[in-house]
This record gives sequence, C-alpha cells and structure tokens, in this order.
Amino acid sequence: MKQLRIGLLGLGTIGSGVAKMLLKEGKRLSKKIGVELVLARIAEINVKRAQELKIPASLVTANADEVLTAPDIDVVIELIGGIHPAREFILKALNSGKHIVTANKAVLAAHGKEIFTTARKVGKCVTFEASVGGGIPIIAALRDGFVANRIESIFGIVNGTTNYILTQMTSAGARYEDVLAEAQRLGYAERDPSSDVEGHDSTNKLAILAKVGFGVNVDATKIHREGIVDVQIEDINDARGMGYTLKLLAIGKRGKKLDLRVHPTLLPQKHPLAAINGVFNAICVTGDPVGETMLYGRGAGQQPTSSAVLADVVDIALGRAQVTFRSLDTFADDSPPARLLDIREITCRYFLRFTVIDRYGVLAKICGIMGKYRISIASIVQPERRNGNTVPMIMMTHQANEGAMRKALGEIDRLDVIKKKSRFLRVES
Amino acid sequence: MKQLRIGLLGLGTIGSGVAKMLLKEGKRLSKKIGVELVLARIAEINVKRAQELKIPASLVTANADEVLTAPDIDVVIELIGGIHPAREFILKALNSGKHIVTANKAVLAAHGKEIFTTARKVGKCVTFEASVGGGIPIIAALRDGFVANRIESIFGIVNGTTNYILTQMTSAGARYEDVLAEAQRLGYAERDPSSDVEGHDSTNKLAILAKVGFGVNVDATKIHREGIVDVQIEDINDARGMGYTLKLLAIGKRGKKLDLRVHPTLLPQKHPLAAINGVFNAICVTGDPVGETMLYGRGAGQQPTSSAVLADVVDIALGRAQVTFRSLDTFADDSPPARLLDIREITCRYFLRFTVIDRYGVLAKICGIMGKYRISIASIVQPERRNGNTVPMIMMTHQANEGAMRKALGEIDRLDVIKKKSRFLRVES
Repeated sequence: MKQLRIGLLGLGTIGSGVAKMLLKEGKRLSKKIGVELVLARIAEINVKRAQELKIPASLVTANADEVLTAPDIDVVIELIGGIHPAREFILKALNSGKHIVTANKAVLAAHGKEIFTTARKVGKCVTFEASVGGGIPIIAALRDGFVANRIESIFGIVNGTTNYILTQMTSAGARYEDVLAEAQRLGYAERDPSSDVEGHDSTNKLAILAKVGFGVNVDATKIHREGIVDVQIEDINDARGMGYTLKLLAIGKRGKKLDLRVHPTLLPQKHPLAAINGVFNAICVTGDPVGETMLYGRGAGQQPTSSAVLADVVDIALGRAQVTFRSLDTFADDSPPARLLDIREITCRYFLRFTVIDRYGVLAKICGIMGKYRISIASIVQPERRNGNTVPMIMMTHQANEGAMRKALGEIDRLDVIKKKSRFLRVES
Repeated sequence: MKQLRIGLLGLGTIGSGVAKMLLKEGKRLSKKIGVELVLARIAEINVKRAQELKIPASLVTANADEVLTAPDIDVVIELIGGIHPAREFILKALNSGKHIVTANKAVLAAHGKEIFTTARKVGKCVTFEASVGGGIPIIAALRDGFVANRIESIFGIVNGTTNYILTQMTSAGARYEDVLAEAQRLGYAERDPSSDVEGHDSTNKLAILAKVGFGVNVDATKIHREGIVDVQIEDINDARGMGYTLKLLAIGKRGKKLDLRVHPTLLPQKHPLAAINGVFNAICVTGDPVGETMLYGRGAGQQPTSSAVLADVVDIALGRAQVTFRSLDTFADDSPPARLLDIREITCRYFLRFTVIDRYGVLAKICGIMGKYRISIASIVQPERRNGNTVPMIMMTHQANEGAMRKALGEIDRLDVIKKKSRFLRVES
C-alpha cells in the first residue's frame, strides 16, 4: 500500500485531537482510502504534553526541524497557530518539499500570498479547510461544489466564542462582562479574548473566504472591523422587541467594489442565521446559479477541526489536493487586489437608539435631521424605560447610506435634547 | 488547452439549464479550471425544444446513440430522469468509454450497483452530486469533507415539493388537497405527484445518502415509507400547539441495524430543520468527530441542479472524480447489504390524537393500556374542539418502541369510547 508520511507541528487542542485520531482511527481511514496514513513525527516544545496525552515518546521531538526538513515526511500539518513562527515553519517545510495542511487563519490572512506563491514555486500544495468554520466543509464548497457559480455573497457567523457570548447575553439577559468571564471559565474564550471579541479572528476568516469565493487578494487589516466589546444588553433587548436577533457577522458582498465587513448585526428572527446559537458557526453563500445556501456546524474545538484537517490529509493522500491547487488558483499570484468599499459607502438598514429628554418636539427635531440627510424611517418605538429625565427612543430606518447616517447622527448628537451618544447597529436581511 | 467533450442527454428543465450554462458560461469556467469544456452534442427526442431554447440546431440530435457511442465525446450527462431508458443509456455510454454525470436518483437507487460495477469494469467514473439536494454539495461533504468521520446519522428534508406543500399548509392553514392543486398550478408539483407526495423520491435519495454515508448497499424499496397524502391540517395545528412543526423527513441512523425511514415527522420548533421552508432542502449529518452539521439550499429546479451537474463536470475535467471513484468505493461491489430495522423495532417519541367520547374515565382506560405496553406519557392536552359528542385528546409520549405502540393503539381503538382510528406521528429532536 502507498504511504503518506505525516509530520505534525503542535500538540495543542487541535494538534492533540489530530494525533489521537491518526493513532486511533488511522488504520480504518487508510483502508478506506487505499493509502496508508503514517503519523511519522510530532514537534512540540512542551514534551511533557505528549506524556500526558499518552502519545508514544518516540514520535515526539522538541526540535521543529526534525519535522520541517525530515526527508521521510511528505506532509506537514501546522497546528501551532499565530503568525510567528508559523509562517517561517510553513515556508521552511514547503522549501523542503512538504505539502502543508493548516488550520491557521491568522498566518493565511497575513502571509497567504507569500505562502501560496512559495508552494507553487516548489510544486507543493497548501490546504486549509480547517482554517474557517471548524468541521464545516466551507472551503471545499466554495472552491469545488460551487465552482460553476458566480459567488454573489458570503456571510455568516464564523467565530464560536463571540456567538456563545451573544447567545448567552440573549437567552440569560446577562451583561457582556459577566458572560465573557463565564466563557473564560468554561474554556470557550481565551484568557486574552481580544482576537475573538474584537473581531480579528472573524476578519481573518472573512479574508480567506473572500479570496476563495471572490478570487481577490484581500488585506484582512483593511476590512472594517467592529467586535462585540461594546454590545450592550439594551441592544439585544430592544432589537428583540422589534423582531431581531444580534449576531457578530462576517459579511462579504460582490459589487463594483467589494463590501467586506465584520460587525454586530441585527437579523430578522426568521433568518436562518438568527437560530445559530452557542459555539456553532454557519455560513451563507449565495451564488448564481445555485441560489441561497447555508452550511452549519461546530466552528471550532478539537473534534470538528480534526475532521477538517484529516479531510485535507486524505485529499493530499489521494493526490486530488495537488490537482486542485495547480488548477484552481486559490490565492493566485495574479488575482487582483480587492477594491473594498469604505464603510461610509455601504448601504443598509439601521437600528438607532437615542437617549432623549422626555419632552414634546424632540422627535420632530430628530426626524428633521434624518430627512435632511435623506434617511427614511421605517418605524419608531418608545419603550417605557425612564432613566432620570431621559427616555430611550428606538428607530429602524429603510436602506440608507452610512456616510449620511453618520453625519445625521453627528448632528443629532449635538442637539441639547440628546443626553448620550446615540447608538446605531446595522441590519441585514 | 486540454479539452473535455461533453454529450448531454435530455433538454428538460435541468438539461436546458445545463446546456445554457455551458453555452453562456463555458468560456469563463474553462479559463478558471484550465480545461476547455466543450458541449459537443445534445440528444433530445423533441427536437423542436432546442429551437425554443435557441440552442444551435447543429448541436442537437434525436438519436441518443450519437451521444452514447460517439468517439468524440468524453463524458455523458444523463438528465432524462426515470429508470428506462436511463439505465440502458448509462450502461451503453459507460461501455463506449464515457464518464457519466447524472442527477437521476431513481436509476441510481434501483440500478446503482450495476451501474457502478460496470463503470469500475470499464475504468470510467459516475458522479451524481445533483441526485440529492439540488445545488447542496451533500455528496461531496459526506464522501470527502467528512471522510475521516464515522457517520452516525443523516436526516433531513430532501424533497422540495412536499416541503412546499407542508409549509403552505402550516402557514395558511390550508388543506392538503387545496395546496397540492396550487403547487401543481405553480409548477412546484408534477401533474402526477405520486413520486413526491408518496415519498418515493425521498426514499431513493435516502438510499443514495445511506450508501455514501454508511457504506452499505440499500434497496430503496425496503425503506419504510410514508408520504404526506394522509397529513391532516389538525396534525399540523395540534403539533404547533405543543411547540412542534411537521416535516417530511428522510431519516438514517446507524446502529446494530440501520434505521432508515421516510415519514411525516414532528420536530421541535427550535430544531434547525423546523425553519426550512418552501422548496428548500436541508440535510443534517452527525459524525464522529465532526459533530452536528447541516447543509441547506435549493433542493431542486433548473439553476441549483445545474450548479451541481457542472461541479461534477469540473471534477471529471480535472481528473479528480476519477481518483475519487477509484479510491473511495462508493456503491462498492463488496459493500455489505444493509441490515435494516423493521419499523416495529424503532424507538422514538410519539404524538397521538384520540377521538373520544367526552365522558369521565376515558383517559384512565387509555392510560391503562399505554401502561400495559410500557409506554410512558410525557404530556396530555385536550383542545376545546367538540365534534358532536366526541372530543380530541392529544398525547405526547416519551421514547417508546413502535411495535408496542402499534399494539397499544390497536387495543385502544377497540375501546367503545374511541370513535375514530387514532392518529400517531413520530417525533424527532
């Protein structure tokens, strides 16, 4: 039987899952695909980790080079995460003639072009199904299943930590800080949660999805990004009162320019994404001719991510990934840089909350300014919730330009009847 | 540039969509994949159809052999549907050295083994992404994306016509017969709707999903099948009152024996499948290690199905489908025949509606019989809905064995206080 010899970098959560799967299920999988999958070596700085995991010590080395440059290894699975030294390890492995399987969205978003160019130069391939959506086969769907389509939009929930926090805030009515602390205690959020809660993880994933789906090179740091750190429980409650659910969405829409953004978004409660709760991810893809689609599953964690990593390993073992990589130029050298819409150029519906003095004529003033900026109002609600002499006023607009909206809000916030910076949230449907 | 020369069988709804896509988008797609896709010939008995569709007459023949045995054709796309002559055409094309792309669930369910064995014998491949779930890449997901998984269950809504009818009954409170007539008028149901409404289409698709996901040969005619023709508006309304939605589900669960069945099923309103409305399809796959997943999209129709057909064509053009077919023995000659659970062996929760005389002591009699058969009751509701001297009584059970349930119902229906055959529906969660 043909062999594929595998080197693994990192025995963290994902790495140990992949190692265990290969050791436990490798034989069954090898038989199924007709290629023997051999876990040849694991590089992990913390060698004690292997003992704890009951992985044979003979497989483990603290010296990454024994994986990266070993002549008896065909493919390197990079699961150390982060940008450095992941970038250097990947390049070294490629230059030593190894294929790469990675779950590392950060390094792909930051150095994807360099990595893919190097891979093409040395005739090896890079696969990255596990980098977005955990076990959801979204990269394969965009690249292969929808290959005949012109992708019109890709948007969804791509970060399980923030979705867990927002779900808990919604169901328990709890404050952001309290839910975050609980999520950290349960291991759903990291001790430094900034990558998740500030939206960096989502913009990295969106950059990868846009590259595969829209065929453009995207600089993830140029994507408009708002995390969930400013989400208030009132946002969630007021939105619910109007039939909406708050989610952190990664949004990509094709147009003259590309509309890419990550921000808390209100969705109608009947929208399929509104029902995606907890650590689950779901990604909606609209294409011509396929129409609307959605893929849903566990977006992170040891088990689902192992499923995606091993699917990539099998794809390489069968020789298909190499064909795909050569033929379908993902991260192509010559793909055009994305022309991104500035956030002020986008158009959507807005949810607004004003904190106003409870006095006749306030609404007229606000509506006057909205009208001046050609923003049309769909509905207005005044919840019974007095705070001193101020009350909230909730408004939902029709489609409006964000630049105009910001100018209008700037002007409204200078009115003497407005007692707090007005809050706005974007609405998708 | 390498060429792939394509012959098309049938210019029906799907065939004309594929022809138009190849003629209109073929160049763009060829450039993307590096292989020129050439629509070489179309066989269609009704040659006028080509004229109506503005397809060059030079491409069209009424003689199928000019596609099936033509030396200048590499792949035959079979889109005539039905079992005969589709089976004979596919076998002839394979024996003439063509690869096959098909959307034909009926012929695969009935003659899949013969077709796949022939293909392996002649060294060609058969692809069938479009046979289940329209544009949803479910076959690829089961076969490739989840290749490392032990698939535990596959269940979902795989028939758009019946889902449209049930959705309309639910939202408009309309009767089955009226909604069916409307669906026929709108083209969502065929003039002879039996394949859809009696569940044959769903059992064929379930047989295909079970073959790919569980690796067993399934005789689709052995799958327990109940369509939607007996669904009453009271079923839907009473279920809604208890927080459930009625869907026609194709259910597959791995166990000592395989549990395969198609029947109207109650789902909790919060279940992701409960929100799948109209002609959409959605399939949930649970695997180890991936966990719960769901794929959603338009399950039928010209455009989505064309997307899946062309994905298969690309897979063959790149040479990947051939590798997949050789390596991952879908419909393998030696895959074991499925050992199916008899419907009396299954276990699930049940929704029951009794039509009883409104008299003290009735409930005690019913509960007594249920207890005798060890069926435990979760809740009882008596809606205010008198009909002469009878009233309905709604019951939800805990997990129970279907054989016991049927015996209990037989005994209950012989009570003199029961005035109509009792209704039962299975519940999944």
